[in-house]
Amino acid sequence: MAEFDLAVRGGQVASGFGGTVRCDIGIRDGRIAALAERIAGAAQVLDADGLLVLPGGVDSHCHIEEPQADGTVSEEGFVTASASAFAGGTTSVVCFVPQWKGQGVWERYRDYRRRAAGGMLDHAFHQIVTDPTDRVVAEELPRVVAEGVRSLKVFLTYEPLHLTDGQFLRVLAAARRLGCLVSVHCENRDAIAWRTAELLRAGLAAPKYHAWSRPAVVEREATHRAIALAELVDQPIQVFHVSCAEVAEEIARAQARGLKVWGETCPQYLVLTAADMDRPGFEGAKFVCSPPPRAREEQARLWEMIRRGTLDVVSSDHCGFSYGGERGKAAHGRDAPFPDIPNGIPGLAARMPLLFSEGVARGRIGLDQFVRLVSTNPARLMGLYPRKGAIMVGSDADLVLWDPARRQRLTNALMRHAIDYTPYEGLEVIGWPVATIRRGVVVMREGKVQAEPGSGRFLPRDPYAMI
Amino acid sequence: MAEFDLAVRGGQVASGFGGTVRCDIGIRDGRIAALAERIAGAAQVLDADGLLVLPGGVDSHCHIEEPQADGTVSEEGFVTASASAFAGGTTSVVCFVPQWKGQGVWERYRDYRRRAAGGMLDHAFHQIVTDPTDRVVAEELPRVVAEGVRSLKVFLTYEPLHLTDGQFLRVLAAARRLGCLVSVHCENRDAIAWRTAELLRAGLAAPKYHAWSRPAVVEREATHRAIALAELVDQPIQVFHVSCAEVAEEIARAQARGLKVWGETCPQYLVLTAADMDRPGFEGAKFVCSPPPRAREEQARLWEMIRRGTLDVVSSDHCGFSYGGERGKAAHGRDAPFPDIPNGIPGLAARMPLLFSEGVARGRIGLDQFVRLVSTNPARLMGLYPRKGAIMVGSDADLVLWDPARRQRLTNALMRHAIDYTPYEGLEVIGWPVATIRRGVVVMREGKVQAEPGSGRFLPRDPYAMI
Amino acid sequence: MAEFDLAVRGGQVASGFGGTVRCDIGIRDGRIAALAERIAGAAQVLDADGLLVLPGGVDSHCHIEEPQADGTVSEEGFVTASASAFAGGTTSVVCFVPQWKGQGVWERYRDYRRRAAGGMLDHAFHQIVTDPTDRVVAEELPRVVAEGVRSLKVFLTYEPLHLTDGQFLRVLAAARRLGCLVSVHCENRDAIAWRTAELLRAGLAAPKYHAWSRPAVVEREATHRAIALAELVDQPIQVFHVSCAEVAEEIARAQARGLKVWGETCPQYLVLTAADMDRPGFEGAKFVCSPPPRAREEQARLWEMIRRGTLDVVSSDHCGFSYGGERGKAAHGRDAPFPDIPNGIPGLAARMPLLFSEGVARGRIGLDQFVRLVSTNPARLMGLYPRKGAIMVGSDADLVLWDPARRQRLTNALMRHAIDYTPYEGLEVIGWPVATIRRGVVVMREGKVQAEPGSGRFLPRDPYAMI
Amino acid sequence: MAEFDLAVRGGQVASGFGGTVRCDIGIRDGRIAALAERIAGAAQVLDADGLLVLPGGVDSHCHIEEPQADGTVSEEGFVTASASAFAGGTTSVVCFVPQWKGQGVWERYRDYRRRAAGGMLDHAFHQIVTDPTDRVVAEELPRVVAEGVRSLKVFLTYEPLHLTDGQFLRVLAAARRLGCLVSVHCENRDAIAWRTAELLRAGLAAPKYHAWSRPAVVEREATHRAIALAELVDQPIQVFHVSCAEVAEEIARAQARGLKVWGETCPQYLVLTAADMDRPGFEGAKFVCSPPPRAREEQARLWEMIRRGTLDVVSSDHCGFSYGGERGKAAHGRDAPFPDIPNGIPGLAARMPLLFSEGVARGRIGLDQFVRLVSTNPARLMGLYPRKGAIMVGSDADLVLWDPARRQRLTNALMRHAIDYTPYEGLEVIGWPVATIRRGVVVMREGKVQAEPGSGRFLPRDPYAMI
Ligand SMILES: [Zn+2]
Ligand SMILES: [Zn+2]
Ligand SMILES: [Zn+2]
Ligand SMILES: [Zn+2]
Ligand SMILES: [Zn+2]
Ligand SMILES: [Zn+2]
Ligand SMILES: [Zn+2]
Ligand SMILES: [Zn+2]
Repeated sequence: MAEFDLAVRGGQVASGFGGTVRCDIGIRDGRIAALAERIAGAAQVLDADGLLVLPGGVDSHCHIEEPQADGTVSEEGFVTASASAFAGGTTSVVCFVPQWKGQGVWERYRDYRRRAAGGMLDHAFHQIVTDPTDRVVAEELPRVVAEGVRSLKVFLTYEPLHLTDGQFLRVLAAARRLGCLVSVHCENRDAIAWRTAELLRAGLAAPKYHAWSRPAVVEREATHRAIALAELVDQPIQVFHVSCAEVAEEIARAQARGLKVWGETCPQYLVLTAADMDRPGFEGAKFVCSPPPRAREEQARLWEMIRRGTLDVVSSDHCGFSYGGERGKAAHGRDAPFPDIPNGIPGLAARMPLLFSEGVARGRIGLDQFVRLVSTNPARLMGLYPRKGAIMVGSDADLVLWDPARRQRLTNALMRHAIDYTPYEGLEVIGWPVATIRRGVVVMREGKVQAEPGSGRFLPRDPYAMI
Repeated sequence: MAEFDLAVRGGQVASGFGGTVRCDIGIRDGRIAALAERIAGAAQVLDADGLLVLPGGVDSHCHIEEPQADGTVSEEGFVTASASAFAGGTTSVVCFVPQWKGQGVWERYRDYRRRAAGGMLDHAFHQIVTDPTDRVVAEELPRVVAEGVRSLKVFLTYEPLHLTDGQFLRVLAAARRLGCLVSVHCENRDAIAWRTAELLRAGLAAPKYHAWSRPAVVEREATHRAIALAELVDQPIQVFHVSCAEVAEEIARAQARGLKVWGETCPQYLVLTAADMDRPGFEGAKFVCSPPPRAREEQARLWEMIRRGTLDVVSSDHCGFSYGGERGKAAHGRDAPFPDIPNGIPGLAARMPLLFSEGVARGRIGLDQFVRLVSTNPARLMGLYPRKGAIMVGSDADLVLWDPARRQRLTNALMRHAIDYTPYEGLEVIGWPVATIRRGVVVMREGKVQAEPGSGRFLPRDPYAMI
Repeated sequence: MAEFDLAVRGGQVASGFGGTVRCDIGIRDGRIAALAERIAGAAQVLDADGLLVLPGGVDSHCHIEEPQADGTVSEEGFVTASASAFAGGTTSVVCFVPQWKGQGVWERYRDYRRRAAGGMLDHAFHQIVTDPTDRVVAEELPRVVAEGVRSLKVFLTYEPLHLTDGQFLRVLAAARRLGCLVSVHCENRDAIAWRTAELLRAGLAAPKYHAWSRPAVVEREATHRAIALAELVDQPIQVFHVSCAEVAEEIARAQARGLKVWGETCPQYLVLTAADMDRPGFEGAKFVCSPPPRAREEQARLWEMIRRGTLDVVSSDHCGFSYGGERGKAAHGRDAPFPDIPNGIPGLAARMPLLFSEGVARGRIGLDQFVRLVSTNPARLMGLYPRKGAIMVGSDADLVLWDPARRQRLTNALMRHAIDYTPYEGLEVIGWPVATIRRGVVVMREGKVQAEPGSGRFLPRDPYAMI
Repeated sequence: MAEFDLAVRGGQVASGFGGTVRCDIGIRDGRIAALAERIAGAAQVLDADGLLVLPGGVDSHCHIEEPQADGTVSEEGFVTASASAFAGGTTSVVCFVPQWKGQGVWERYRDYRRRAAGGMLDHAFHQIVTDPTDRVVAEELPRVVAEGVRSLKVFLTYEPLHLTDGQFLRVLAAARRLGCLVSVHCENRDAIAWRTAELLRAGLAAPKYHAWSRPAVVEREATHRAIALAELVDQPIQVFHVSCAEVAEEIARAQARGLKVWGETCPQYLVLTAADMDRPGFEGAKFVCSPPPRAREEQARLWEMIRRGTLDVVSSDHCGFSYGGERGKAAHGRDAPFPDIPNGIPGLAARMPLLFSEGVARGRIGLDQFVRLVSTNPARLMGLYPRKGAIMVGSDADLVLWDPARRQRLTNALMRHAIDYTPYEGLEVIGWPVATIRRGVVVMREGKVQAEPGSGRFLPRDPYAMI
């Protein structure tokens, strides 16, 4: 009988630190059982010669099959999302259990747990909190957390999701008692509402005015506020989707004060710009997300904040709405004013190729930092490390074989998601995932996804050091 | 007939810039008509030999005879406040027209204008805005501003005064259209409420917990938010009563970005500490004000921010509640929990002596900066300069003769206000006002106030350069 | 007999603080005897209706008739410099007593004192120190300082003037004992030498490479070093001719630490750019000075540092070399490599018009700040205030009548200096001095200078508060 | 025949990133051949149960058997230093090839290479440059670098070692051409000389005045200067032995500008203080090193700079002088003035235990960061990674088995060096190395060192990514 189920042989293994080492990987029972100069005695062998072997991507911010208050769910389901993730080198995601005002969270968790079980991706959850009533805080959240949901997600903007400062403080205090991270969407709701009303009053309603309605100062304000309130409660937080350097600077200042504050950014802020929302006709709607992409020159400053380590996670914030779909971007017509355009863009499959190409291939970051940004750091911050995000003995055998030289022009077909467009259509990247392994199973080879619906596992998270 | 009504002779005239010059001052019709080596031909002569001659103090933040929603008014009336001001070298004040939720401002302005006319102090007004309804913004505020009320005051905390961010934005936008300054009380209401509830739940209700309920981060948060929203609207603001350096630092950062943001501090933050609220029994209530005095070591850092020019106005925030009064500090009994202690301390008379003694006599600031902090800068920021705050030809003849060497132990009797205590009782100062002149009239000599009730004038303000 | 020798009537008097006041000025015995609504009884009356009346300019950094080690003197003599200064609104200068290595300073002072006495400008001196021997430090400097020379000037670059750090420390320590300010030319000598050698080796010798030989980092390094060494000795310093924001930032940091460090800039850094040195042929030599003008975009940042108050003096660093002169710019021929081009440009007459036009007329600074930058602040920092730099009773009657609306195209003829060109030829300014008064004497009217050689006075300086 | 020469079994392997993983390590031919859940088939087995397994320490700043200009060598020889290193968990060092003014480097390199070969430690070299003549720069340095010496060390202070700025620039430029790192001892020589002379003149000569002679500003100045000159040349540098936060702040600013500047600190700055030099009699001499230890409160700020990542290497700067030795601390007698006390303290063995105890055991840093500071980061910065500083397949099998709970009181005997004292005598640490493995050989167990003199290897370094 073979000692190993699978051996990955001859690759350059990049663990996220200290460059690459050429070694074989022996996998048994879905986990990495050995790293060695040479692994023999494997039932199956995958040749990685000439390829990088990276830990499977961990996308800690994905909206998948997310139920809405009206009973509908987002277009992207777990099966399509799993295919999209595998196609792009990602093997684990953290997605969101909803809460709707006036309701609890336990049933939502149960329902969402069931939905997620239908896919092929390993998955953990953030619990969204929009209504921290006494009952929710005292009874339901502890129960959900006990299931292994160790992060609470709050919004400082969006109707009807946003929390007042007082509600946010309740969530921070609850998180502290329960040992959870709190992730925050930071934009000032009133400021956006005021700007939006002024813009509409002035007849400025085209998609591009979405960016005008929420300039950087609106995001910086909410970020400083979120940090200050977290500081008051002494609770670690992660600032989601930082779009520009002045927001990151608030995080850097907090870190220099010794606070546990982390910053996430997304490929859209490194690749897209506000000008994309000004494409002819309604095309700009394809790029509407919040915070909005900023000016081109902001991107260089954002890369600098990545290099400095202030921003240490790159997620997709995958949140797809089809351009042509009934409930998609044009749900209110192709001349809908910008506030009626659903916020969000798909990016699950494109995340790693975009960051590798724009980052590593263009020399902005090294391979180590790439691996940390897309896999190791999110795994650590989410308490999934070293089960996920690592190529270490004992870790889950989630691996991606990456051809660093392959040139690929992005098309929507390659994305393998349920959405009818990609905002990156036609963009050429350098570097491409040629095979993805999830817990020892080859689930993608050369773009072809083969994995059984229902094979994804829930990842319960224990208390961990970072919070 | 004499050429001048009054000559002040032989003093060292300190204009706030460039040290002192020995010269005579000729006054006619209440204004400075001449500055000369020697003024002859005056009907009355005041000998200032050996004394400093300073522009009369301008206290741009005073709560005097302020009507409350319940029909009462604050203990300090305009007559007693005038006496107190003159006793301490101040000749002009800016006080507050109230607004109560659900009501307008025009009647309030009319009523308050009438009240203020009964005193002896020259006075300008801030218009408090607590309810910026369409009608108030569109109809009433323009009318009040047209009367010469060129600053709007808002609260980001206090029930029921505080504004939401959305309301604050409306006020900022209105101020921009109307050409007004906006002054802001910066503390985060929800954070204070949360902390207060937690403290009370833990049985921590003594006066000293007032400081625990609103730590510096609560003030810093609201300050950054106020600046950010003002930045969004492109509207100048003044941050009231900055209590510590980390708050001032936010102002410094904004100034370095080129924003029109100014910072005020008050003597209580330079002289008192949070420990004063921990005096035995209920005594600590005498020091309860918001933001609260901070730690002793914070004071040195605050002086540094004054020297850097980040904080450029020192006001009293005079807001007196008698210790023994029925509606005073112990209105809810001498074991009232801290949230039931009225916020505010008296300081109109003590302001200039305290700042001179702690600042000039102790070498922390020069005489010029003293004059600017207590007179010139508030006059400029309020649009009263050079009518007030200056010793220039054509300026109002508001002067204070100051003995820089006189040692004086502060007592409540010296304060000449309507309040039954001073938080500075027993403190010895170096430097003291020996005579005060208001528009050419000697209204105070050696502590004796002589001025006719009703002789104070309203100071309408025109649009001016700083906003 | 008339009470006043001269009355300036009806002007808008701008004292540098708080805008303008319309008043008359009465002058007696060369000093301001009175400021009043109306001055009658004057022997002579000058009508200033419609004009600004400013304190005469104080240019605290001028190279005039400066003897060189080889026995020659600079082209600009005191008579021509006086005419140029008066033409541009300046009435006082601080110029430089040389020292040459191996020699003392007392004889130099005596000689230079005699030279300066031949002009019409009031003058104070910096003592250059290039060789702080025991004898110079212990015997000669005290003697020169006792004469009223209260500032020592040192160079951290230039052959053979520069000091080692050890020599600089000796000067700082001597200045501290003697109560002198130290002014510093901050550029790193070795860095310039290294870059220059590399450039010449590469055949890059045209005038424009002067700027390449001393980039901003070279100036920033020397500035931080000068500040650090002054900090070690606890000695106030002024950083001369700051050319860009990153250098000013070092000064701002030092000020925020509470150090007595001041920064000067010059019009050339606000108006010229490095590109001017790239004009065709040898024309670029006309703009060669050190530090060199920087990039256009640097100017906006420099204005910001002026507005922040980090840079508080604008001097000319007038140091003229005729373009065609035998000992001028082309002394080594019109194809001389850049190290052989004399460093320095003329700017005595252009200083105030340039700063008024670019600053006040273009809205970058207010009138008050203009007056402070060109007159009040240099007077204060040099210990000449309030004798100079002020319009106060008792001050010297040095005034300039300024037409804020006059448009004037600059030509070399208007400069009235001994140099055959101006780097600002053809530039149109808004605002122009129409009359200059020096100690009560009208020495310039409408460009016509009338003053007797030998009428300028030496300005001995006493110990003063700023050092 | 066994597959592995040695297996380390059952330990918690800490690679410097992501906590620990329980796995076995299989070693063959001195290198790590496998990491696996279970390694069988090894000729020798070392049980690490209950222990941490860390990569062997890399001490990138050690003075060992360093020849002096006078023909003597430092007391510590390679054999004793090897024992000391192994006793403290260190397996590799980078030490210094000297250069003396007026002489070349090649012979020095040859000689030093021979000396180092006599020890048991793996060793790489910095080449000290004190005289960058044309010949040295053009001919000798390239030859030494070609041998694998990829860092140049310069001194900005010390007679007769220090370089002028011009010489430093030559070295920086040479390093850039040759692909070397430059490491810099940053203190301002002239400032120290000036202060020293002043102190001695005042009769202040006791050991403690060593600290007075070189305050923080002297170190900060040289650090900013070193960075600025490196910036001019675009050459990466490492700032040696940063003693306080204000120096580290200069490094942080440079890093934020995107420069390749790294900072090292040493245990003496985290554990000792200036007060130690004030111990009775001549005892203080035991703590004399440069820069000197600072005030106690500085230590917390230094830890903060470590946590921020600004300081990323902790070396020993081992430089031992026996207290009683003829050429030791008291070479000039026990009442020698401080400038005659040799600079330097021994710390090779104490480095890792001190940092683990003060850092990890006291909760100031995590285990990961500890490993990075003492092993991974110096290996990376020196271009030795992943051969050294890593527990990866293919890396040299340099390991240390660490008992995190062992309490140990430090004594000089434990240090196993040639010096007669340790500055840490009597200090109790938590955490201790119980075995050290160098290239697969167990060279230390429970304090007992067993390794053959001459078994250490020279580590030639190739060009690498960090420079
Ligand atoms: Zn979001
Ligand atoms: Zn999202
Ligand atoms: Zn208030
Ligand atoms: Zn108030
Ligand atoms: Zn110069
Ligand atoms: Zn000069
Ligand atoms: Zn050193
Ligand atoms: Zn060393």
